[in-house]
Amino acid sequence: MNEATLTLEGWYALHDFRSINWAAWKAADDEERAVALDELNAFLKEWSDVEAEKQGSTAVYSIVGQKADFVLMHLRETLDELNAIENAFNKTTFAQYTTKAYSYVSVVELSNYLASSDGGDPMQNPHVIARLKPILPKASYICFYPMNKKRDLSDNWYMLTMDERRDMMRSHGLIGRNYAGKVKQIITGSIGFDDWEWGVTLFADDALQFKKLIYEMRFDEVSARFAEFGSFFVGNLLSPEKFEEMLKL
Amino acid sequence: MNEATLTLEGWYALHDFRSINWAAWKAADDEERAVALDELNAFLKEWSDVEAEKQGSTAVYSIVGQKADFVLMHLRETLDELNAIENAFNKTTFAQYTTKAYSYVSVVELSNYLASSDGGDPMQNPHVIARLKPILPKASYICFYPMNKKRDLSDNWYMLTMDERRDMMRSHGLIGRNYAGKVKQIITGSIGFDDWEWGVTLFADDALQFKKLIYEMRFDEVSARFAEFGSFFVGNLLSPEKFEEMLKL
Amino acid sequence: MNEATLTLEGWYALHDFRSINWAAWKAADDEERAVALDELNAFLKEWSDVEAEKQGSTAVYSIVGQKADFVLMHLRETLDELNAIENAFNKTTFAQYTTKAYSYVSVVELSNYLASSDGGDPMQNPHVIARLKPILPKASYICFYPMNKKRDLSDNWYMLTMDERRDMMRSHGLIGRNYAGKVKQIITGSIGFDDWEWGVTLFADDALQFKKLIYEMRFDEVSARFAEFGSFFVGNLLSPEKFEEMLKL
Amino acid sequence: MNEATLTLEGWYALHDFRSINWAAWKAADDEERAVALDELNAFLKEWSDVEAEKQGSTAVYSIVGQKADFVLMHLRETLDELNAIENAFNKTTFAQYTTKAYSYVSVVELSNYLASSDGGDPMQNPHVIARLKPILPKASYICFYPMNKKRDLSDNWYMLTMDERRDMMRSHGLIGRNYAGKVKQIITGSIGFDDWEWGVTLFADDALQFKKLIYEMRFDEVSARFAEFGSFFVGNLLSPEKFEEMLKL
Amino acid sequence: MNEATLTLEGWYALHDFRSINWAAWKAADDEERAVALDELNAFLKEWSDVEAEKQGSTAVYSIVGQKADFVLMHLRETLDELNAIENAFNKTTFAQYTTKAYSYVSVVELSNYLASSDGGDPMQNPHVIARLKPILPKASYICFYPMNKKRDLSDNWYMLTMDERRDMMRSHGLIGRNYAGKVKQIITGSIGFDDWEWGVTLFADDALQFKKLIYEMRFDEVSARFAEFGSFFVGNLLSPEKFEEMLKL
Repeated sequence: MNEATLTLEGWYALHDFRSINWAAWKAADDEERAVALDELNAFLKEWSDVEAEKQGSTAVYSIVGQKADFVLMHLRETLDELNAIENAFNKTTFAQYTTKAYSYVSVVELSNYLASSDGGDPMQNPHVIARLKPILPKASYICFYPMNKKRDLSDNWYMLTMDERRDMMRSHGLIGRNYAGKVKQIITGSIGFDDWEWGVTLFADDALQFKKLIYEMRFDEVSARFAEFGSFFVGNLLSPEKFEEMLKL
Repeated sequence: MNEATLTLEGWYALHDFRSINWAAWKAADDEERAVALDELNAFLKEWSDVEAEKQGSTAVYSIVGQKADFVLMHLRETLDELNAIENAFNKTTFAQYTTKAYSYVSVVELSNYLASSDGGDPMQNPHVIARLKPILPKASYICFYPMNKKRDLSDNWYMLTMDERRDMMRSHGLIGRNYAGKVKQIITGSIGFDDWEWGVTLFADDALQFKKLIYEMRFDEVSARFAEFGSFFVGNLLSPEKFEEMLKL
Repeated sequence: MNEATLTLEGWYALHDFRSINWAAWKAADDEERAVALDELNAFLKEWSDVEAEKQGSTAVYSIVGQKADFVLMHLRETLDELNAIENAFNKTTFAQYTTKAYSYVSVVELSNYLASSDGGDPMQNPHVIARLKPILPKASYICFYPMNKKRDLSDNWYMLTMDERRDMMRSHGLIGRNYAGKVKQIITGSIGFDDWEWGVTLFADDALQFKKLIYEMRFDEVSARFAEFGSFFVGNLLSPEKFEEMLKL
Repeated sequence: MNEATLTLEGWYALHDFRSINWAAWKAADDEERAVALDELNAFLKEWSDVEAEKQGSTAVYSIVGQKADFVLMHLRETLDELNAIENAFNKTTFAQYTTKAYSYVSVVELSNYLASSDGGDPMQNPHVIARLKPILPKASYICFYPMNKKRDLSDNWYMLTMDERRDMMRSHGLIGRNYAGKVKQIITGSIGFDDWEWGVTLFADDALQFKKLIYEMRFDEVSARFAEFGSFFVGNLLSPEKFEEMLKL
Repeated sequence: MNEATLTLEGWYALHDFRSINWAAWKAADDEERAVALDELNAFLKEWSDVEAEKQGSTAVYSIVGQKADFVLMHLRETLDELNAIENAFNKTTFAQYTTKAYSYVSVVELSNYLASSDGGDPMQNPHVIARLKPILPKASYICFYPMNKKRDLSDNWYMLTMDERRDMMRSHGLIGRNYAGKVKQIITGSIGFDDWEWGVTLFADDALQFKKLIYEMRFDEVSARFAEFGSFFVGNLLSPEKFEEMLKL
């Protein structure tokens, strides 16, 4: 069986990072801002309803630093739904007060290295389905970064044997397991969808755990020799109330 | 016979990725938007007529994520026609509501590694012509990315012998063949025309097949050791009706 | 004990680099500028009060060259506070006359290589706490840069043994010690928080000492073989009076 | 004799790539556009007169794709003249409807590897002068790209002996000779003037010849191991009539 | 004695590259432009007075190509003075018609490799002082570029012994000496101040000498194996009269 077919995919993911155009937001009049907030709240409600019906999931976090002001992370059954969400949001009054900061298109996946091989159809396994179509945690903090496996002369992940890769991924997984209960991790695959091979989204109630986990993993051969990282984004949970407070002048 | 002369070229290609300036589009009045849509539809019709007459082909897809909102992929007999299309589009009212996102200039090619050597003139072979001057599929999803073959110390594609390259390309082609009926692939060469050596445009009715195909190929030596990739774009088919719906406020 | 748990973390840090939009600032009327300055001064006062209460610390410096006009470096107990400071500042009138230049999110840390191992809980040690929750110096000059430890084939920091790394860090520390009294250094860790692994902020009353220190360290194996550097920013202390003078037309 | 002194230099070159601001161009009134076109035509005439007097040469081509809309390639005796042309153009009404896309500063050169060594002063040789101060062809297509010779560990052009380099350049030149009559090549040196070491400008009546020539050369060791390439630009000849047509709304 | 302390530093340097916003400059009325020019001339006069008093030096050159329209290169005793110059210039009416293009912060230095070791205090030596606090030439042409010494696996400058480095720098210096009288070179160190390790500013009355010097040096091992270069800027001397002519519409 070839390697690609061992990977299981679930919901598609769109991370939509945005900055607020504060000058325009301040220049708007109260009525315009009220319309914008109503629209924003209607969307937040709609996404929350979709989640309640287990048709998808959406997480909303502020982002610290200048890279972005907030992120909307959407999981949905199809790319079409993600595209529709994005277009609908772009047409809102609120969106006119935001600018693009970064986005990421991927799909929730379970690595072939960790897949159980008990012979059953994993897509019939409710534990597998729960991991492929997860309801995103409402933890206090989020961390997102994209990554590749290196293909650089003697450090070429894709020239290793399946056994070598499985062994390294297993040791890598053990580190992650030490953070069970502290950090929740969603891996999304993006080969063919975006500029890096994977997106990693972490959730925690203590932001320091992101640093400790990733730092510890960096000494693991699979990260040390083979991981390439893109930009890192970190932020705080934005409930609808906090989002409104963030926007209050 | 030298290697370059073994490559066959067909129609020139222009991938024209654009973003919509939603703030301006919303600020326009109904009449202005109607004019813009009429012009857009006239162009879509014109391109469709060219395709019906087999004088070229045009695919129109939305793009998911912030990189772009849609792509116009044009195939035409000459660079002059592509330039004319681009200039005509730039002069439309609709284009004033879009911004440049990315573009790619290339030419449909058949690799010398796969060329049949039965002695006949391939440009007289209707199967070859059909591949060099293809009518683009109207599949549900598109995937585009540019790529190079690496020239990095011991991983230098262009320092391999013709036999080494042919063997690797053959094994590479076998993976592609497993996706026959699932993924349709158009390879365009861009040496001398744009910043990467090739563009790859994939079409499928199931977007996951893009990921599975490219992931599987990545373990193949020709990709693992020798491929360098640019940005990936993925999107949904935009019929004229869907395009109008996308733009409806 | 694994390596990550040997690192101690203190206050979170936000370096907020901004440029002044001089054309807009000049175009504003006197009253608008007075409002903006009052708001700026109120924030400077508030941050100074927080520092007096040892609930955090803030340093304000101009930046030489076009990269930015000034930096606000904030240390606070939580990411939430940094996010709140950033949002509050973004809503001021003064902020509308500035543009984003660069930012960095990190957390003050004490390296595991230098941690004393006398068995006591370091977080009960007032000397340790003073270094983890430092009041930023009001030295004449600041220097900031982000950095990584390399993972490049045979120059891979993370594939070295703990002993090799400790020995190199010790020799590195000795150079730093020669600059005691001349350069004060704050190391902040940013794995999981921003695009580089560490931020380095230096303070001195003689800017040449930055150059001498960093140049001398560059011949040390830990820098020579293993350090990768981002952008460097250098600037002058901005007291509230100097900030007002800088903005006076 | 050292190597640098073997290189012969002729006219200085400025490639000035520009995009048209179509929204502004459409928003202008007829009179304004007429003024702009008159000025443009006056400059085109002036440059053509300079060429007729063999005091320099100017080529004008449209560019396909979003990188630029057109390029003005000027050859002149001094950098001062190029600077004056650039400034004069910047002051025109037409230039206000364009934006900067890319530029390249270099000087026509004859490589020391190919220089004849018959002992005479090459600057007295009319064939040499004709190549150093060339009248640019009015071929149908242009291709421009900048390039370096690599200095990467064991692939370091500048650590080879003169003999090794001369041998490789000779074989490289033989490929070029096969395209005599199909592709005309102008090599300009830019060490000290711009960000790459050379600029290559190709002219042909069949754009495919650019691709075939560069692809064939890429398998040659001097390209395969030692060439680094920047962006590629390709376009169509713009006679004054075609330029006017391109701008007609 | 360690290596860093062998380096001598003199005046701080700010290279301030700017582009002219021609559309705005043309849109301004005559009176506004006259005010702007008066202010510009007042600054040019002030900088010239500082130079006459040997308290610093300023060079003003136009830049060829789109990277910038002109550069102000200032040398002053302190970073504070450079920051003050920059802020004062930013507040002028003229500056509102310019945009940032690039800047570089550094300090004039004499390399430890070339320092005489006759035992005297070099800072009492008038020849040394004249090189550390130079009056900038008013040559016809300027060339500026930043550079690093490489730290790339086996090509790592900072892992060489002092003797190896001194030998290479000596041979490098010999090439420079052949250009005495043709090219005047100012080396500025920027470790800790800007993104590269050194800035190189060259002055000549024949711009070709820049190319010949740098090309010849590139075959020298210290450049061939160890130099990394940033962007190159080249331009023509701008006397106050020429600057005014450049701005005249």
